[in-house]
Amino acid sequence: MIKQPAFAVEPWAVHETELDLDRLAQTESVFALANGHIGLRGNLDEGEPCGLPGTYLAGVYEVRPLPYAEAGYGYPEAGQSVINLTNGKIIRLLVEDEPLDLRYGQLRRHERVLDLRAGVLRRSFEWVSPAGRSVRVASTRLVSFTQRSVAAILYEVEALDGETPVVVQSELVANEALPVTEGDPRAAAALAAPLKSEFFGARGTRVMLEHSTRTSKLTMAAAMDHVIDGPPQTGVTSESFEDIGRLLVTADLAPEKPLRIVKFLAYGWSAQRSAPAIVDQVAAALAQARHHGWEGLLAEQRTYLDHFWDRADVEIDGDAELQLAVRFGLFHTLQAGARAEHRAIAAKGLTGPGYDGHAFWDTETFVLPVLTYTVPHAARDALRWRHLTLELAKERAASLGLQGAAFPWRTIRGEECSGYWPAGTAAFHINADIADAVIRYQAASEDEEFAGAEGVELLVETARMWHSLGHHDASGRFRIDGVTGPDEYSAIADNNTYTNLMAERNLREAFNAVNRHSQRAAELGVGEEEAAAWLDAAKAMVIPHDEQLGVHPQAEAFTQHQVWDFEATAPEQYPLLMHFPYFDLYRKQVVKQADLVLALHLRGDVFSEEEKARDFAYYEALTVRDSSLSACTQGVIAAEVGHLELAFDYHREAALIDLDDIQHNTRDGLHIASLAGTWIGAVAGFGGMRDHGGILSFTPRLPQALSRLRFRLSFRGRRLLVEVGHKQATYSLLEGPALEIVHHGRKATVDPKRPLIRRIPSPPAREPPRQPAGRAPERRGPPDSASTYRKDRAPGARVPGPDG
Amino acid sequence: MIKQPAFAVEPWAVHETELDLDRLAQTESVFALANGHIGLRGNLDEGEPCGLPGTYLAGVYEVRPLPYAEAGYGYPEAGQSVINLTNGKIIRLLVEDEPLDLRYGQLRRHERVLDLRAGVLRRSFEWVSPAGRSVRVASTRLVSFTQRSVAAILYEVEALDGETPVVVQSELVANEALPVTEGDPRAAAALAAPLKSEFFGARGTRVMLEHSTRTSKLTMAAAMDHVIDGPPQTGVTSESFEDIGRLLVTADLAPEKPLRIVKFLAYGWSAQRSAPAIVDQVAAALAQARHHGWEGLLAEQRTYLDHFWDRADVEIDGDAELQLAVRFGLFHTLQAGARAEHRAIAAKGLTGPGYDGHAFWDTETFVLPVLTYTVPHAARDALRWRHLTLELAKERAASLGLQGAAFPWRTIRGEECSGYWPAGTAAFHINADIADAVIRYQAASEDEEFAGAEGVELLVETARMWHSLGHHDASGRFRIDGVTGPDEYSAIADNNTYTNLMAERNLREAFNAVNRHSQRAAELGVGEEEAAAWLDAAKAMVIPHDEQLGVHPQAEAFTQHQVWDFEATAPEQYPLLMHFPYFDLYRKQVVKQADLVLALHLRGDVFSEEEKARDFAYYEALTVRDSSLSACTQGVIAAEVGHLELAFDYHREAALIDLDDIQHNTRDGLHIASLAGTWIGAVAGFGGMRDHGGILSFTPRLPQALSRLRFRLSFRGRRLLVEVGHKQATYSLLEGPALEIVHHGRKATVDPKRPLIRRIPSPPAREPPRQPAGRAPERRGPPDSASTYRKDRAPGARVPGPDG
Repeated sequence: MIKQPAFAVEPWAVHETELDLDRLAQTESVFALANGHIGLRGNLDEGEPCGLPGTYLAGVYEVRPLPYAEAGYGYPEAGQSVINLTNGKIIRLLVEDEPLDLRYGQLRRHERVLDLRAGVLRRSFEWVSPAGRSVRVASTRLVSFTQRSVAAILYEVEALDGETPVVVQSELVANEALPVTEGDPRAAAALAAPLKSEFFGARGTRVMLEHSTRTSKLTMAAAMDHVIDGPPQTGVTSESFEDIGRLLVTADLAPEKPLRIVKFLAYGWSAQRSAPAIVDQVAAALAQARHHGWEGLLAEQRTYLDHFWDRADVEIDGDAELQLAVRFGLFHTLQAGARAEHRAIAAKGLTGPGYDGHAFWDTETFVLPVLTYTVPHAARDALRWRHLTLELAKERAASLGLQGAAFPWRTIRGEECSGYWPAGTAAFHINADIADAVIRYQAASEDEEFAGAEGVELLVETARMWHSLGHHDASGRFRIDGVTGPDEYSAIADNNTYTNLMAERNLREAFNAVNRHSQRAAELGVGEEEAAAWLDAAKAMVIPHDEQLGVHPQAEAFTQHQVWDFEATAPEQYPLLMHFPYFDLYRKQVVKQADLVLALHLRGDVFSEEEKARDFAYYEALTVRDSSLSACTQGVIAAEVGHLELAFDYHREAALIDLDDIQHNTRDGLHIASLAGTWIGAVAGFGGMRDHGGILSFTPRLPQALSRLRFRLSFRGRRLLVEVGHKQATYSLLEGPALEIVHHGRKATVDPKRPLIRRIPSPPAREPPRQPAGRAPERRGPPDSASTYRKDRAPGARVPGPDG
Repeated sequence: MIKQPAFAVEPWAVHETELDLDRLAQTESVFALANGHIGLRGNLDEGEPCGLPGTYLAGVYEVRPLPYAEAGYGYPEAGQSVINLTNGKIIRLLVEDEPLDLRYGQLRRHERVLDLRAGVLRRSFEWVSPAGRSVRVASTRLVSFTQRSVAAILYEVEALDGETPVVVQSELVANEALPVTEGDPRAAAALAAPLKSEFFGARGTRVMLEHSTRTSKLTMAAAMDHVIDGPPQTGVTSESFEDIGRLLVTADLAPEKPLRIVKFLAYGWSAQRSAPAIVDQVAAALAQARHHGWEGLLAEQRTYLDHFWDRADVEIDGDAELQLAVRFGLFHTLQAGARAEHRAIAAKGLTGPGYDGHAFWDTETFVLPVLTYTVPHAARDALRWRHLTLELAKERAASLGLQGAAFPWRTIRGEECSGYWPAGTAAFHINADIADAVIRYQAASEDEEFAGAEGVELLVETARMWHSLGHHDASGRFRIDGVTGPDEYSAIADNNTYTNLMAERNLREAFNAVNRHSQRAAELGVGEEEAAAWLDAAKAMVIPHDEQLGVHPQAEAFTQHQVWDFEATAPEQYPLLMHFPYFDLYRKQVVKQADLVLALHLRGDVFSEEEKARDFAYYEALTVRDSSLSACTQGVIAAEVGHLELAFDYHREAALIDLDDIQHNTRDGLHIASLAGTWIGAVAGFGGMRDHGGILSFTPRLPQALSRLRFRLSFRGRRLLVEVGHKQATYSLLEGPALEIVHHGRKATVDPKRPLIRRIPSPPAREPPRQPAGRAPERRGPPDSASTYRKDRAPGARVPGPDG
């Protein structure tokens, strides 16, 4: 259940009914608004109190040195950290000389609503000042999906008892003080005062601040303009300094005659263009926003999101919380990727400074599968970003003694920023994950322009890397030794099964791609012999198997290692990495996150159903889910092998990761991959969707708690609607020509004219797998008791269908 | 050949015939004097020019933070670094207002001699000042073996042309400026101005400075006193400040009437005692030194060294350089360990700041075998130091989730100071190496007091650690997974053969020890069951074997890894760790230093001769010797399996490591383990000495170049002299009762009354092994051309016997 007691469950909104100052940082992440280019944390309008201020632009970072107790060749010497930029969210209010600060006075009512269809964050509250003057404040904030440099805020304040003098200060603030966080390596390194003033100015209702970063030498500007609607004699002045710009509005408010201010914000940055050029760019964006007006921006936002939900919505009947959580996940996945365009989609999106703002394999493996089938152009743009960093990846490969391209484990701009190579550089699977996303996008989109340009090049350069990384042993088998798979509780192992299988596909598809795009291949210097060598390596790839146990080891020798002593591990010793040395974790059978089980999903084409069931049971007993990149995949395979109730529990866990703050670090930003995994859990889990070889197949099956699942997929010019009940599944084409699919192993054709209806077979009966002591996902109570989970649940929380 | 062209080859002295200012730092290491407690680098008396000033006390360090780009549980947060202490070596000279500085004026002659029998460093030179005044200066420096807190310098200056006014300034200087070194992780972290003044004072010819360290809170004092013999009207004054103490001697020198100053130095430190107590202790040591006088100290030093050489000398006929190098190695091994008493013997001894002054496994595996058979009490004291750190090692084990004790990979005081765990904490073999040194010392000394106290406890706690580190797999075999063996170009591997074999002996001998010392065992809480479990683990220990290749893999799967591309590796790309990432090194077959080959030596009892020959050939082709801990062991096994000329080349390489600066880092301090390995190469290599199971066995065989080898061993109250020729070996007892030995596989008894003479069988004929391209040891030319290697070789360099 949603454990944040102030969240009401509504189908299309995260509705906070009271303010908990102790959870501010967490809710700032939950209520963050972004469009993939600009990100604004859900900080209160008045700036303070504040958990963690946050204003981000995709691609803007500062460089920081990476220190080592013992240096080593090839260690990155500098890292990149996302930085908190000029804060334009701030609108301070003085009520008769008393600054509005919710820590003082009396808060009569406070509500925040993240509206997933309108794409806005609404806030309203009534506050009585320590001196006894009461006001009602309402604000609506948006970050525009349609104008990517623009955000806007509607701010209204009304006096409730008699004429009240107020001052509203709308601000731009650079170099805000940040709280210092220490101890947890996952939290961002705080970078103090990273911005250097380049320009500032105020004229009328407009203010602009321009800054540059000291080491990374990026230039960024923020500007604001205002439309003010207040009583006569309302005074307006503006001023600006190096790190602060201010608009002051003074008014004497009478009851029922609110002061209404629309604040338009525009942001821009560049590594190349001049400071004046960026000033111009931001001024233009601001003028355009003002021209569209508040209502215009709102309307565009709604239209954009209607189009999105029409293509992406997942409807879940039977669990209102899950329904909300799935939409929340999709909304934030969209916010992370929609307008990222040729910039990285970070693990936290633009919702917080966690993981230094870096992008990892999360993007390709968890976010892009969702975008590929819902917002395909965003998937393409994310892969184009990888392609833009190809030269850096080739340089990195060369410095590692490899051919082709070695993409960074973590980065903002493209350079390797990992300061611990066993869990960074050694995790070569990221290269196959990128290739996998390329293959998936191309198969789903039939985007020949991309395939013939960026696609083939990404496949070729990653295949080259794999071919040079592995080697044929004395018996001719192709081995990939000493690498780290997805499971971060193992490292530097030989023949990681996931890695080898993903590399196998990478090599094979690169071979296919150069045959399809022979001219481009020739330009890339790929001869017949080179391509043939890739195919040879793929064919000879080592896939470890433990004959004695009848399971696939995660990597060679894994199943011979000691099993972690789960019985002796106390609940408070999780996550294990905070309480045990890597040394101990690496050498034992304990799994942080799906690794072999992820192979069962992404390379399900090479495992039999029986193998999947056996492997899944084996790894369930070892997997502690200390990573947010696990529950979704465990749920997908649990569903496939027939453990539907377990799958349901995993699905809820992935979906509620941030609404419930399951990992206790939502404060640093949302877990975008797990939120995207909510879609994967529904579509690939209960929908059983797979896309091996570019063919859509489904093995839909619902858990008891759900009565219906509906989801939409964009695929090769078609829009497919899949509706899953307990007995049957219905496939309808909303757009496009007939499509051949596979339902529970049998081919069938969905005709545009009428839905295809197919019976759902019962799942096989299998012994339920066991998890490590205390690490099973939270069991959900019987469905009928769901509404008693929380006393404050709104009576109308039961969710109608998406159209109702 | 000795490539330092200024070194003449003499049997008992390193004789530098001219000064090369570009090699100052290297020669400062070579000419360092130490007694295991105090270490003085061979800096010039006048302080400047200087390569690297160095005055060290065993156990005095400062704490420095260990930074990590990405932190991890259990990473040491603070390291310990040896620091340069108060420099008492400085004696400056003003010749008629002109400071003596060899960079100016004219140097007519400059000689330095490290006299290995007298235990002193002599220097003499003639210098003409820029103003044309010439002086002759002679100094003799000693660090006393008999008075461990004392050093002394005899300084004489004589005017050569007419009456010359001179000022001699004898100084104590704290917080000297150090050159900044960067880039090489092996170089020490420079710690600027680590000393805080606690006390200073000057009275008459005596001056004292006392300081404490800022973070490690150690207190140390240095004091000097002088005996001055000069012309009438020689003036003497003294003064002192926080960081400098000074004695000024002014005299007008007439030719042939030198000014003679004896400078006595005393050092003391403590972590516990008060500042006044340390002042007193140092004053007492100084008074005692003055009481003995210069001649007394010199005589004691000679007596001490006569006794040492009588027990330790290795005579080599046929290679004068090697003869000198072997004695040079033995002398520095003695200097590192003689009076270390209950302090660590560092990898660089007290000759330089390299490796931060840390002790590693080098001590137990390379230094203690030499001390055990030559200066047994020093071996005992070094093991007692380990025992003193047992509580820290037990805490470390507990923090790693292990039983018993986990000794640090690198340390000064006992805390783990390794900032890179894959090549630090994971190198658990250090615990078995310590146990091995205990077993060897006990067997050779029959020191029952030690065995029943420190010995049994060290064996028990290390056995406990191994038992908890390994586990019995499904087939009952005892595996030790995810550890790092001696070869630092591999890490985190399963069942490292060396580690497993050494752990096997550790477990077995702990079982034997608790049976022999049952009362002490009971006090340590060892029950029958626990001890039986150790024996079970030992019996079930996994020893990997590659059936296909017929060799022992260094660790499981090692022989399946890709072989390093040696052909593509340029000579300037060595050492590989400076040019390739660990990632690449770890996953390939490339060996930095003897690992499996070290097992062939130390656990030679479990390998057949054929296995040794095959394994040696296999690893020869992979071993690049980027570590100084390799040539000696490769030489030992080369000799055993019959490659005597190769053994000879390795032996010379190990012996000349610092005289020739083979690793290009002698500037940071000498390679004590390799220097000790010079003895090992002679005794265990050409002497074929082994001590498995406490029985001395020999398989002596000489290479062509040598005509005779003689060495002495202290063993169970006996002194054994072994003389090896080409045809026969002679075993004589110099002291003690009859001794059973093994000669080339056959038991024989050496009788006190007459030498045992045995024939030496011819070595088996085997194919010479190959080394990686360019990595074979330097071949020595034909023996008769030896004297043409260097043009400046003294005509009398051919070495007579040790008595001649």
